[in-house]
Amino acid sequence: MSEATTSKAAGENEPFGTVALIGIGLIGSSLSHAMRRGGLARRITGHARTTATRATALKLGLVDDVFESPGDAVRDADLVILCVPVGAYAAVVREIAGDLKAGAILTDVGSVKGSVVRDVAPHLPAGIHFVPGHPIAGTENSGPESGFAELFDNRWCILTPTKASAPDAVERLAQFWRGLGSDVETMTPEHHDMVLAITSHLPHLIAFNIVNSARHLEEVTDREVIKFSAGGFRDFTRIAASDPVMWRDVFLNNKEAVLEMLGRFSEDLTDLQRAIRFGDGDKLQHLFTEARGVRKSIIDIGQDTAAPDFGRHPKADGGKAE
Amino acid sequence: MSEATTSKAAGENEPFGTVALIGIGLIGSSLSHAMRRGGLARRITGHARTTATRATALKLGLVDDVFESPGDAVRDADLVILCVPVGAYAAVVREIAGDLKAGAILTDVGSVKGSVVRDVAPHLPAGIHFVPGHPIAGTENSGPESGFAELFDNRWCILTPTKASAPDAVERLAQFWRGLGSDVETMTPEHHDMVLAITSHLPHLIAFNIVNSARHLEEVTDREVIKFSAGGFRDFTRIAASDPVMWRDVFLNNKEAVLEMLGRFSEDLTDLQRAIRFGDGDKLQHLFTEARGVRKSIIDIGQDTAAPDFGRHPKADGGKAE
Repeated sequence: MSEATTSKAAGENEPFGTVALIGIGLIGSSLSHAMRRGGLARRITGHARTTATRATALKLGLVDDVFESPGDAVRDADLVILCVPVGAYAAVVREIAGDLKAGAILTDVGSVKGSVVRDVAPHLPAGIHFVPGHPIAGTENSGPESGFAELFDNRWCILTPTKASAPDAVERLAQFWRGLGSDVETMTPEHHDMVLAITSHLPHLIAFNIVNSARHLEEVTDREVIKFSAGGFRDFTRIAASDPVMWRDVFLNNKEAVLEMLGRFSEDLTDLQRAIRFGDGDKLQHLFTEARGVRKSIIDIGQDTAAPDFGRHPKADGGKAE
Repeated sequence: MSEATTSKAAGENEPFGTVALIGIGLIGSSLSHAMRRGGLARRITGHARTTATRATALKLGLVDDVFESPGDAVRDADLVILCVPVGAYAAVVREIAGDLKAGAILTDVGSVKGSVVRDVAPHLPAGIHFVPGHPIAGTENSGPESGFAELFDNRWCILTPTKASAPDAVERLAQFWRGLGSDVETMTPEHHDMVLAITSHLPHLIAFNIVNSARHLEEVTDREVIKFSAGGFRDFTRIAASDPVMWRDVFLNNKEAVLEMLGRFSEDLTDLQRAIRFGDGDKLQHLFTEARGVRKSIIDIGQDTAAPDFGRHPKADGGKAE
């Protein structure tokens, strides 16, 4: 547990008056469900670009009021949460800056943080508390119908306050995330981007890449790749089914850290390739054995299920098959 | 469905007299459970190298009799299934060749097939029906306690008969696999090795590699990698938790096809790297969009679950969260 999770201030359960969701996709809709569950907002307003998404958001009760203009959505909001792809932040913030309520907290859920500080901070008037954030949670699905209240339960939310973030606003937002079910950690935007480059961005890049490599083979048909995917490939396709625009923006906005991690990955892969080419079985076995231990640690701290094969088989409960 | 699954010959449900399992790990123990469930063997014998595995196999009722010597295990067997890492086949087959019963079917479950034909066929006496096989099924767990009867349900089993494989023996073995719950496809050993190089071997290699890359960073601690793994990394650790000796042998025995697929993967990854370096958002979005479609096909043909995030969240049912 981080220090942040142990300091529970008074007023932890006091709901925000109005929370504005700018963007109502997987994360925005899950935030709504989790806010309703936890009683964290008296009123939820929303903005979405398309008429269809706005209609769905109202129909599902994700928002009490929905607006075509993001400025209208934020006008009375005590907490504004940007839930659009990070590439859209600069334009959105320019549009809402004049409508933000004095004393409001502005945060986001973007997967990169350095560029967010760069794109958002310069446009904000004085009196707005900007505290960037990133919940380490998601699924491969997108859109307002894909959200659910449990998405953030037992997941980490990273806050990356800047020097301008008032400590009270940071603590208030941390309380909000704990109310959504998350544990909260704080770090610098730069460190966040390096951590996420290896734990999330590089895994997605590699998954997108292997799926595309498999689509253009002469020796093996697409039908065969799909049919025999249970040998490992199908796990990569889940990650590669994530929202393309969101991921485009991640890679455009975390270039340096991703290129650094990609360089290391490629170096290590070349080393493995040599071991295969020269039949170095001892080296292969050693490297595979080392990799095995990491999973146990992830299960031990509750960040994944211990059910074999992610519990795809009803009786795959790890030894209780008799 | 392949042609093989539509030709159901008489005697499909006739059990084998004795089936011998050479090796009793995840696959061997799952075969036992699935044979018991389907009534596919009157008696199951087994061989395992260690005293502990032999004792566990008896205790769990996986085998009716267990033997320290593989020759003793196969003596009365009508069907012998090699379930040890493929690197051990040559030695095992030399040891059992003299004890195999005339007319017995010898098969295996190894993840490579070309090297199996090379290592096994020359040692066999006349009158033994050798039909290599490979069930495209597994979990990240190993050992006799990790097996369960449902492992092969709705998964493909690939048989790779050689010119010496009698058609009757191939059909008898195909019936056996259908009885275990699988669909059956036949192809050449060479084509099998190419298909599996992309659908299974390369995904495992990449998973092992990224997990190891993540373990030796200066900027990000191992603890952070584990803590924030829910952003994608944890999916790779599942695959990277697979048995190291089995996978060592796969890469040593399918070198050419793996190096070919790895070459293509690296080429494509370099192309993605350039797109990131030069900020080519259109290209990134296009490639990510193309990759997304593959998952739907895999779910449509029943080779993976449609539950978001593999169903890790109880209510993540894809839009029915209200």
